[in-house]
Amino acid sequence: MSSFTAYKKDMAHTYILGAFPTIEALEMTPELFLHVYIHPDYYESDALIDRLKEKNIPYDISGRSIRRLAKKDNTLVVGVVKKELPPVTDDHHVVLENISNMGNLGTIIRTMVGMGVTNLVTVGNVADIYHPNTIRASMGAFFKINHSHFETMKAYQQAFAINRKSYFFLLNEQAVRLNHVEKPNIDAGEKFSLIFGNEGAGLESEYGQFGTAVFIPQTDAVDSLNLPISVAIGLYEFIN
Amino acid sequence: MSSFTAYKKDMAHTYILGAFPTIEALEMTPELFLHVYIHPDYYESDALIDRLKEKNIPYDISGRSIRRLAKKDNTLVVGVVKKELPPVTDDHHVVLENISNMGNLGTIIRTMVGMGVTNLVTVGNVADIYHPNTIRASMGAFFKINHSHFETMKAYQQAFAINRKSYFFLLNEQAVRLNHVEKPNIDAGEKFSLIFGNEGAGLESEYGQFGTAVFIPQTDAVDSLNLPISVAIGLYEFIN
Repeated sequence: MSSFTAYKKDMAHTYILGAFPTIEALEMTPELFLHVYIHPDYYESDALIDRLKEKNIPYDISGRSIRRLAKKDNTLVVGVVKKELPPVTDDHHVVLENISNMGNLGTIIRTMVGMGVTNLVTVGNVADIYHPNTIRASMGAFFKINHSHFETMKAYQQAFAINRKSYFFLLNEQAVRLNHVEKPNIDAGEKFSLIFGNEGAGLESEYGQFGTAVFIPQTDAVDSLNLPISVAIGLYEFIN
Repeated sequence: MSSFTAYKKDMAHTYILGAFPTIEALEMTPELFLHVYIHPDYYESDALIDRLKEKNIPYDISGRSIRRLAKKDNTLVVGVVKKELPPVTDDHHVVLENISNMGNLGTIIRTMVGMGVTNLVTVGNVADIYHPNTIRASMGAFFKINHSHFETMKAYQQAFAINRKSYFFLLNEQAVRLNHVEKPNIDAGEKFSLIFGNEGAGLESEYGQFGTAVFIPQTDAVDSLNLPISVAIGLYEFIN
């Protein structure tokens, strides 16, 4: 019996907790799977096992292994997958600098996939994108994205400089209001990067000079909108 | 020494956990305060006590009381407040039917206040809007809203029928796409109600006949956008 141990950030694999997201990922990215654990109480194990045999993915039926990997009592299936999302393409990007909350990261991934923008760039010191909590918060969307990481915003900007417009979302009322922003010429092949800072501090104002500084209209009655909300509003405005 | 006990839904008061949201609420709605507990370790207690004396609000300095009311160890101030948000006015509304998650409710309240739409209507069997977890998730925005509850959508529609357009957000691709929706004539005093169903099931399709059925453009690659994201996108489109 295989014995994968509790998740740690430096492992080359991660865990998908739950039957629904595991089966969803099996359809999207079977090549990433190393193993699947199935609880003896899982009521649709026959269909799942058939699929695993078809795809030559090893599995165990073991409640104990699941308890070792998933803290919630009601988890019935755990997928063990390699940490190998494909790198981002030259299409539109969402860029997150220093984001710290895994729930936010997962919600943003779900929203991106819902909006059809599937390239996620992380920059700097970010939460563990492959953590099982991020995957769980994405509600099955995780394995539908591409992902690349850069240590600095400058390195990212240099890697993707051609035929692309960068929009830096700032908490600065002097910036262009989102609903008045000049969008890229998508029909001419121009791409956009929507760039957001971390939950507490946001982006440094100086970044605005590397592209367009954008402000989402909001009242003074809150400190800010929450980060997944800001990303969603930005995406909605740019793709519609 | 006052001895308020752990929160229960049927109490006529609730608790604000944390110094920042308590002080924010003190500014907005001092008339709702029954009591404030201050931890001996709270480093700005002098300024807070001055304010409480000014407003004639009783307080205790007691770590034990705070531990009784707040489960998180790092809470240093707890406000005890009456459950008496003002009722909604005849301005724009956000309407939530059968919403079940307090974190979502708090995030939606924060977003509404950020967007300047401060009338929240709940309908049916909803999460406890006054629960300390809802207040906490609103990040200080909670006491800036008006709130009314109706048992049925019909009762709500009858109470606010005049000079108002209702938009029912459905997961139905046959509905009008949000970016093409005909908005109310706000300059002529017309108001909008943006109406959302619960996290899992959404709204019943039949509701569409009582107003405009709206669909937020999204791909088939997700089951849906999450609820606070949908509300935020709806608000953004309607107020900009």
